[in-house]
Amino acid sequence: MSTMQFWFEYGSTYTYLSVMRIAGLAGARGVTVDWRPFLLMPILAAQGMHDGPFLPFPSKLRYMWRDLERRAQKHGLPYHRPSTYPPNTLLTARVGVLAASEGWCQAFTERTFELHWVKDRPIGTEANLAAALTSLGKDPGDVVARAQTPENKEALRAQTERAQQLGVFGSPSFVVGEELFWGDDRLEEALDWAVAA
Amino acid sequence: MSTMQFWFEYGSTYTYLSVMRIAGLAGARGVTVDWRPFLLMPILAAQGMHDGPFLPFPSKLRYMWRDLERRAQKHGLPYHRPSTYPPNTLLTARVGVLAASEGWCQAFTERTFELHWVKDRPIGTEANLAAALTSLGKDPGDVVARAQTPENKEALRAQTERAQQLGVFGSPSFVVGEELFWGDDRLEEALDWAVAA
Repeated sequence: MSTMQFWFEYGSTYTYLSVMRIAGLAGARGVTVDWRPFLLMPILAAQGMHDGPFLPFPSKLRYMWRDLERRAQKHGLPYHRPSTYPPNTLLTARVGVLAASEGWCQAFTERTFELHWVKDRPIGTEANLAAALTSLGKDPGDVVARAQTPENKEALRAQTERAQQLGVFGSPSFVVGEELFWGDDRLEEALDWAVAA
Repeated sequence: MSTMQFWFEYGSTYTYLSVMRIAGLAGARGVTVDWRPFLLMPILAAQGMHDGPFLPFPSKLRYMWRDLERRAQKHGLPYHRPSTYPPNTLLTARVGVLAASEGWCQAFTERTFELHWVKDRPIGTEANLAAALTSLGKDPGDVVARAQTPENKEALRAQTERAQQLGVFGSPSFVVGEELFWGDDRLEEALDWAVAA
């Protein structure tokens, strides 16, 4: 059975498309997805991009929202432009890393993005986190406490460092063996690579 | 008959894929392509990006070459990493604008990119320009003289300004009515949009 690593930042807009599509597309091809949340901002900041990939560039920012809307329509996904951009994703990413280590990252991440993109309950707010965790039968207080331990904070830092070492510079990214693919529009290509590998 | 504007910078790497693919894909859909060479660097510089979209970012630059190679293979196009990057495209773009006004921009541009990407005769060199023009039965001396007139220089400046007004921030870009599409990986989507429009 082939495996593909899915590296993603919770605040990335295009990542919404991949989060909602990846399980179905990978399942149909018999590829196992290894969910790898990380923080993109430290990686961009290390390259001098302190305001993310879009905010400093008005025409690119405007294009991103329109392109995203078209791509969501194309893939049959609901699209409502969230009121919050960019969201503060630190705590959510910590929970994501904890969830990955316990095997419930996919369900948590799908729910988190759905709340952000469909219900406009922004990622990073308690409303988002509590609703996502409760819907999975988790106790938010317990999970957040375990996400904030020094060990788990360190796990997210290490994961982000690993992303950087792999050459990841954006989200979503897919890694198959030595091959890196960047962008939701490379998802099918990356999965095909995993099948052929 | 639908029309699509194809906005491109001769020095853009991903633009190679679109230049070699667009005529065939558009023809099969009955879409007319309006070839619009412009200069990307002034548009990027106005946003504070003085070194282009890749050079300041080593991991993104490394990824671009590898991704381009995979995409060329996928589309059955020859791929040889050119020895010159980025090329100096000012004179070539001036010739491109002249060619567009006279109806031979497609042939000139296909030849120019082919020489750069297959024969490693870099865009911006006399070897590239003279070979491209000669193969089209043009006299290089005559064409270059006409490309360097104040009127033609101004035409390229105006074209670049128009690109900026349309919200173009990268190459290749495709414009159908009010819709902007960016990147070779949006070429088919843009053409489908033109057909549906």
